[in-house]
Amino acid sequence: MKVRRSDRLIDMTRFLLERPRTLISLSFFADRYESAKSSISEDLTILKRTFQERGTGLLETLPGAAGGARFIPYILKEDAEAYIAELCAKVSDSHRVMPGGYVYLSDLLGEPAVLRQLGRLIATQYMNQTIDRVLTVSVKGIPLAQAVAEQLNVPFVIARQDGAITDGATVSVNYVSGSSTAIEKMQISKRALPANSKVLIVDDFVKGGGTISGLASLVRELDSEVVGVTVFGEGRFSGQRQSENFTALLHIETLQSEVEPIRATPGDYLERVFGNER
Amino acid sequence: MKVRRSDRLIDMTRFLLERPRTLISLSFFADRYESAKSSISEDLTILKRTFQERGTGLLETLPGAAGGARFIPYILKEDAEAYIAELCAKVSDSHRVMPGGYVYLSDLLGEPAVLRQLGRLIATQYMNQTIDRVLTVSVKGIPLAQAVAEQLNVPFVIARQDGAITDGATVSVNYVSGSSTAIEKMQISKRALPANSKVLIVDDFVKGGGTISGLASLVRELDSEVVGVTVFGEGRFSGQRQSENFTALLHIETLQSEVEPIRATPGDYLERVFGNER
Repeated sequence: MKVRRSDRLIDMTRFLLERPRTLISLSFFADRYESAKSSISEDLTILKRTFQERGTGLLETLPGAAGGARFIPYILKEDAEAYIAELCAKVSDSHRVMPGGYVYLSDLLGEPAVLRQLGRLIATQYMNQTIDRVLTVSVKGIPLAQAVAEQLNVPFVIARQDGAITDGATVSVNYVSGSSTAIEKMQISKRALPANSKVLIVDDFVKGGGTISGLASLVRELDSEVVGVTVFGEGRFSGQRQSENFTALLHIETLQSEVEPIRATPGDYLERVFGNER
Repeated sequence: MKVRRSDRLIDMTRFLLERPRTLISLSFFADRYESAKSSISEDLTILKRTFQERGTGLLETLPGAAGGARFIPYILKEDAEAYIAELCAKVSDSHRVMPGGYVYLSDLLGEPAVLRQLGRLIATQYMNQTIDRVLTVSVKGIPLAQAVAEQLNVPFVIARQDGAITDGATVSVNYVSGSSTAIEKMQISKRALPANSKVLIVDDFVKGGGTISGLASLVRELDSEVVGVTVFGEGRFSGQRQSENFTALLHIETLQSEVEPIRATPGDYLERVFGNER
């Protein structure tokens, strides 16, 4: 039975949003809705316009018989600025300061609505690049990695600091944890990362950069390539970081002050991603 | 500027899908699209019908001036059966058998498309219940917990087996790991789980039930209530399980057979969730 345009638009919206970066052919939609390809083409034009007007993302449409559409989520500069400002306000809360200068972020990084926006922000940074895998280290980086992987529609991979991997052969590296000079070890299951993968590294927090530098070593050990590194928060670090090559959404400082125990400000994300736009 | 119906339907679809279980008022949509509430009401009727026809979920519409709509994702019985059969085929792969009878599942549980369906399956089981938090234990339960939390639109909380929590005051319990008789310890940050929360426990795999029994103790220690326990895979266990009170999507057995080293079959999920339906 031929499906009405309104019903097609609703179902196509859901279908495309659930499959970012995937080309869906005109024929597929034509069969699914028992409708002419020309009607589907018109639907896609409407979808493209609405997605653009609402800042939802880009609907790339490929013309011709083999054509179709691919949804690429992004966030607009003004939405990104507003959202990062909102995060700064949420993080700048004295209750988050833990002994040792740690910052409690697990509530934010366990909130689906927050994670979806973080995923959109980071996916926007890499929207024009090929990414095959998102990599993080357990535990606190996992939610962010999963959120980004969803928006990029690629698998995510978890490196572990303990020896409890029951996932077969592993590769491990030693690294210096940023907040100390202790040598630590992290490992990854070999089968989790095929050779020649293009890898995006994400993590919750960077201080000295030792962890992300260790993750990058794991990628190289498995004959793959780091395409980028983006973290939620960057802390203050006195001395030379082991890796400076990352983007941070927020800059977070814990201060020895009763008046202002913590201060979160935008990191270099906005500048790096939207720097050249007016 | 008044927004056309087609554009409204597309944007409302996205808006509702991203906010499961949240009541969005007619007034909100009327303002957003500068349209009459009566038009928005008609839009919601179309959305409701399409969501139902496509098995996307239930759009609860509340009539009246204070009314609105709430999207509750679910999966239909036939889709659930087909998807679980597909998972059984994917898991019944000899390459997944690890030394010690462990099963490699990290690829599936790191794939956004798989996780979305798993989230829908488990959210369907609890669609008529109040859930305030999803709880799991690190590391392998996290992706599933996050996927379920997304569909239920509630925060998820991660208990840890190591002592590395930098999240302030914790509560810990001892538990017996199912695959051994060793006493282990797991802990949770107190602030992660407010008292009187209704908690859904999820995990990747159950053998002896020690871990989920430990998670349930943590919930009780924090004066909250376990509403349900659902896991991806249930293994074979000889002897008395520490907890029998859980639902499994799959039953997974590793066999001492060269012909069939592993066998995955549907768990009791289908029976429990759809048992009384024709």
